[in-house]
Amino acid sequence: MTFSVQVKVMPLKDLLDPQGKAVMGGLSNLGLNAIQDVRVGKHITLQVEAANAEEAKSLADQAAKKLLANPVMEQYEISVN
Amino acid sequence: MTFSVQVKVMPLKDLLDPQGKAVMGGLSNLGLNAIQDVRVGKHITLQVEAANAEEAKSLADQAAKKLLANPVMEQYEISVN
Repeated sequence: MTFSVQVKVMPLKDLLDPQGKAVMGGLSNLGLNAIQDVRVGKHITLQVEAANAEEAKSLADQAAKKLLANPVMEQYEISVN
Repeated sequence: MTFSVQVKVMPLKDLLDPQGKAVMGGLSNLGLNAIQDVRVGKHITLQVEAANAEEAKSLADQAAKKLLANPVMEQYEISVN
């Protein structure tokens, strides 16, 4: 069975997010001052061949640990559809 | 009131996703061959000052249309927490 797995990778909460700051500057230049904070991360969709959802999730977890997320600066969340 | 708005920006389905292909190559080099397709996009979290959730969503929609998503190559989804 093929499972669609969503991996959300965001910068760690305590870290400065320069990309987010840059986007916020751009948005305020566009007059969208109601937007007070911006954090930019990655959204990765994986199509995983697995026997069940748990196995698909564990394969996605391996992928996140080995390649998709940098544990020093990023945190990730996995959800299986 | 401050609302936390999630904006998921993904490449359009019909477009080739070179970043996704590169990640897939890396994952298969790591022995994760069960992962058959990878698509990489952006996940953006906005803190929006608004009177209600609808207003927060419409501000986020403006931000997505004006800056966060490139309509030629990307599609976006907005969810208000």
